Amino acid sequence: MTAEAFLQDFHHVATIGATPNNGVHRQAGTDEDRQTRDWFAGFAAEHGWEVRVDGIGNMFALLEFRPGAKFVLIGSHLDSQPLGGRFDGAYGVLAGLHAAARIEANVRAGGELPPFNLAVVNWFNEEGGRFAPSIMGSSVYAGIMDRGQMLDVRDLQGVSVREALTGIGYLGTDEAPEPVSYAEIHIEQGRILEREGLTIGAVDSSWYTQKLDIEVLGEQSHTGATAMADRHDALVAASKIVLMVHDVTGNFEEEALVSSVGQLTLEPNSPIVVARRVHLVADLRSNSPEIVKSARDSLLADVAALAEEHDIRINVKDFDIRANQYYPESGVELTEKMAANLGLGVRRIQTMAGHDSVAMNRIVPSVMMFIPSVDGVSHCEREFTTDADMLAGLDALTEVALELVNGALLDGGSIPAAEGDATSAAVVADSSGAVATAGATA
Amino acid sequence: MTAEAFLQDFHHVATIGATPNNGVHRQAGTDEDRQTRDWFAGFAAEHGWEVRVDGIGNMFALLEFRPGAKFVLIGSHLDSQPLGGRFDGAYGVLAGLHAAARIEANVRAGGELPPFNLAVVNWFNEEGGRFAPSIMGSSVYAGIMDRGQMLDVRDLQGVSVREALTGIGYLGTDEAPEPVSYAEIHIEQGRILEREGLTIGAVDSSWYTQKLDIEVLGEQSHTGATAMADRHDALVAASKIVLMVHDVTGNFEEEALVSSVGQLTLEPNSPIVVARRVHLVADLRSNSPEIVKSARDSLLADVAALAEEHDIRINVKDFDIRANQYYPESGVELTEKMAANLGLGVRRIQTMAGHDSVAMNRIVPSVMMFIPSVDGVSHCEREFTTDADMLAGLDALTEVALELVNGALLDGGSIPAAEGDATSAAVVADSSGAVATAGATA
Repeated sequence: MTAEAFLQDFHHVATIGATPNNGVHRQAGTDEDRQTRDWFAGFAAEHGWEVRVDGIGNMFALLEFRPGAKFVLIGSHLDSQPLGGRFDGAYGVLAGLHAAARIEANVRAGGELPPFNLAVVNWFNEEGGRFAPSIMGSSVYAGIMDRGQMLDVRDLQGVSVREALTGIGYLGTDEAPEPVSYAEIHIEQGRILEREGLTIGAVDSSWYTQKLDIEVLGEQSHTGATAMADRHDALVAASKIVLMVHDVTGNFEEEALVSSVGQLTLEPNSPIVVARRVHLVADLRSNSPEIVKSARDSLLADVAALAEEHDIRINVKDFDIRANQYYPESGVELTEKMAANLGLGVRRIQTMAGHDSVAMNRIVPSVMMFIPSVDGVSHCEREFTTDADMLAGLDALTEVALELVNGALLDGGSIPAAEGDATSAAVVADSSGAVATAGATA
Repeated sequence: MTAEAFLQDFHHVATIGATPNNGVHRQAGTDEDRQTRDWFAGFAAEHGWEVRVDGIGNMFALLEFRPGAKFVLIGSHLDSQPLGGRFDGAYGVLAGLHAAARIEANVRAGGELPPFNLAVVNWFNEEGGRFAPSIMGSSVYAGIMDRGQMLDVRDLQGVSVREALTGIGYLGTDEAPEPVSYAEIHIEQGRILEREGLTIGAVDSSWYTQKLDIEVLGEQSHTGATAMADRHDALVAASKIVLMVHDVTGNFEEEALVSSVGQLTLEPNSPIVVARRVHLVADLRSNSPEIVKSARDSLLADVAALAEEHDIRINVKDFDIRANQYYPESGVELTEKMAANLGLGVRRIQTMAGHDSVAMNRIVPSVMMFIPSVDGVSHCEREFTTDADMLAGLDALTEVALELVNGALLDGGSIPAAEGDATSAAVVADSSGAVATAGATA
């Protein structure tokens, strides 16, 4: 497949669920999701590949070189965040399809018949924007989430995963291919590669993360009639907490910790009533568990002092704590070597976000690769990666996948267990109905 | 009527719509509102007073001493804020009923027949929590809001004022009594009287107020994958604005300005997405228009600097600007004199909140009186005033009303016009659906 063919396909898929500002709105189990799935199935059919859909909506396009042999899986996800970007996930699936086509062409052209088969996968519901938890399809496949339980998950309108998948015709009954290894390429969603002028990131680990559920209890009063000295304004205290959560990153080396409040609701939320209650969720992530723990302890102390200063009650709960995950060293080295062979600048990098590869890495040696994100933005319409970087990434994925079907990573590529992983079975819901995921976080 | 009878009635009415923490939940046009209205009508019937209900649900209990003479009106409102206090409004209506009963008993016992009649009024929808704008019934009565337009106002469930009043049987067709003057007693909702150990406030003016509608436009991104340096977090900037709105009060003398953000919403409000948009409303009030204008200008400059610092867009709009209102000097002096006669500590005071008397003062000389609020809290369940203060206020209102039916305030009691009143006809709705009121603000 030519570079032009890849770009044509990529930019075509980006028109499905396209938004006015160059993004896509393609949440899991919607009609837009169905359209990308139909396109995926059509691509496979054109190439003569069998398509299987399993019982949680994962789609596999199979290239069977040796009947009965296990499969190397490559891919990512075609669903998006609401008003999300057109690269997050979709790039990895499109690159996977084109890499597979190139490998097949290579084999057909008289290359050596590889010992393993190849499958391109479109995982169901990586984003978790409609159905929480995120990284659902790959986690069920990897056996770290329960299929029946996940099929019963409902969106805010009360529609279940089972109903949504049935509705779009993608609740399958096929047996999923048996895996031997996994590779995924994704946009970085940060700007480390861009800043350093590099094209490929060889992901060696995922960050340590945790959330804090914070409830600020002030006193409802009149915004006009109540003297300033007599107020116990929950929103003033909550605003200080938002800034504390932001500023705590300054206690550590630059970018060693990321920390934000993305969700905040107040009661009664009337222009003439001082708020009695604010609920907010802070998200802390670092490569270093010690940094997250230190930031968390520092915030708890500051919040306690704030509660005293404002004479209000603040309840803080830890939740959704996830340990670091490590990708096999042999896979990281494989990415470095293939990139170097292609003359592409490469470095080791961590992922702050969760990915399907985090789930897959629990069961088979997995390789995770990044290409640059312009301005480092993601989960928004402005997300952007250049055609040139996408093509370079496709080349690198093709080389890595070729090594994998030839048996790379299967000797000495042991899978390090996660350290102190306490959340592999837990699904934690916060009080506002937002649900955090187990095992991996998007 | 004895003091015991008043307290018994007051505490009985507080059981209607009572909440677990000693408040009341009795929004306009609800069944709880109907129950207090039925009780009001029953009280009037027991005393042989005619009850009239006008075309906007205002209730009048008439004591006709001289057929054909105009009426002195005394009263307040029986509706409450959601999870509101049991004193706000209800105290003034109950005190009005008992003051009227005392005056009638006095006349029957051989006192002089007064030149004017007396009516106790329960104004419809002073709070505006369900149907905006607030101070609706008295404003329609005073001719500063249009009855037809107000009957068409709908709550968030789509129920109109017309439907709600019809539903509880209180959309009347009676002619309202013709007014000659008005008196109202209310809890202070601040703590000036409490701090100074005084029992009666003689309200001489209302504060200058305005609101700011503020929209913060950042950029949606991933709370995990986006480096801190690359974020344009709308909530971080909005939190700084909340604190600016609070801290700007420090530019002026203590309590010369009150300033709060009571409403704030963010999008998309997901724990793992940096907010792209925050909408908030700031409420600024002072006796001095210059102070409000200076605070507003200072905030606008600070917000502009903030937008530059954070590289985001912030849109600010002025709305709901209300000029000071002045009560007639003769009425203020009347309150001072009657309080002194009763041996009650009294001082002149301003009202930061809006009241039905602000609307009535547009058409007849009006007297506004306060009694203390414990801890100054209001619009909440913890609102509290002692029985002793309520009884002292009842005595003072009785004396004031007696003077009014005997013609006080009708010579030399000219009504000063509001200065620079720009909002008498405007009803302004902000983008979040909250509607601010015209002519008076609760």
